[in-house]
Amino acid sequence: MTQCLDENIARLEELFARLPGLGPRSAARIVMDLLTHRKDLAQDLVSQLGETLKNVHHCPRCHALITQEVCAVCDDPQRDHSMLCVVESSADLKAIESSVAYRGDYFVLMGRVNPLMNTSPEELGMPLLMQRIQTQSLREVIIATSYTPEGETTAHFIAGAIKKHCPNLRVTRLARGLPSGVEIEYTDVATIACAVIERH
Amino acid sequence: MTQCLDENIARLEELFARLPGLGPRSAARIVMDLLTHRKDLAQDLVSQLGETLKNVHHCPRCHALITQEVCAVCDDPQRDHSMLCVVESSADLKAIESSVAYRGDYFVLMGRVNPLMNTSPEELGMPLLMQRIQTQSLREVIIATSYTPEGETTAHFIAGAIKKHCPNLRVTRLARGLPSGVEIEYTDVATIACAVIERH
Repeated sequence: MTQCLDENIARLEELFARLPGLGPRSAARIVMDLLTHRKDLAQDLVSQLGETLKNVHHCPRCHALITQEVCAVCDDPQRDHSMLCVVESSADLKAIESSVAYRGDYFVLMGRVNPLMNTSPEELGMPLLMQRIQTQSLREVIIATSYTPEGETTAHFIAGAIKKHCPNLRVTRLARGLPSGVEIEYTDVATIACAVIERH
Repeated sequence: MTQCLDENIARLEELFARLPGLGPRSAARIVMDLLTHRKDLAQDLVSQLGETLKNVHHCPRCHALITQEVCAVCDDPQRDHSMLCVVESSADLKAIESSVAYRGDYFVLMGRVNPLMNTSPEELGMPLLMQRIQTQSLREVIIATSYTPEGETTAHFIAGAIKKHCPNLRVTRLARGLPSGVEIEYTDVATIACAVIERH
């Protein structure tokens, strides 16, 4: 029984299968697609991934992963520098930007406190965040982590550290309540409970 | 509203999103995973994909995509060279190999006749297949394309070409019928109809 026609292609499929959300079948499909119909895309992927890997680093102001000197948000002079919003990921930053409800600065943790995964506060850029909070004159810090167990732990951790270093700084969390466009009947009980308790 | 923190990373996400089965969100997740926790995997992907792209070609005997001189199956001296099984893809070849029911040679079309996609017989290696059928002394050709409209079209096309060039060669198709381990009640009607007609 010959299970592998070519070792190099098999190894490539195995590497793709290790990406999040992919398995052996989807990886094999991607590799075959790249090698038969889309060699141009494959070549672009090789050069773009190689180039990005060489230059990727954390933004010295907001800790997001970037390849330029400073990220597009930190580089924007129109921002309100008296507000700082702490988010878990660049994806969360983009989601908040899409809402057009916030025009201040960001700090991107690139992760969350997770004792099981051994994620340390240093990895999340906590020293950089504390330094920024102490040196930048801020009106408010919004801790915009998710309302998941890990997100809540991260929020408590950050709020505690801020209270220790800048006890007078206003620290807020995003409001919790009913999502827009969803009927109450189909909303989970934890969300309804929060909406009732935090009614205004 | 800043939707992109870094152009290079955005371009990388866009390239990943063009792979089959991936969209903008899964691509962004893969890129962040590669750039934060798995730079080794990313580097391996760059070198392995680059290397494979440089060397990939069709096996001169069976038409499968390979990077070595000849594929592992064609290189195996233990094979029964009087049987040839024509499959659509390397994945189908692996599936038939896993069944351990066939020990002959293969021919891998790397696609199927598809008028909408403009897939030509040359792309499917038909000239190479015809040359092989005419020069290799064969007992039987098994056309192992799927029982889908495109697979059936491909099978008819190949059977017609073989009949024209080698009218006395035995040409077979894989049997159609009930799948193992599935109850008749839950089998689709087309499959049941085939199982009744081709009963033995």
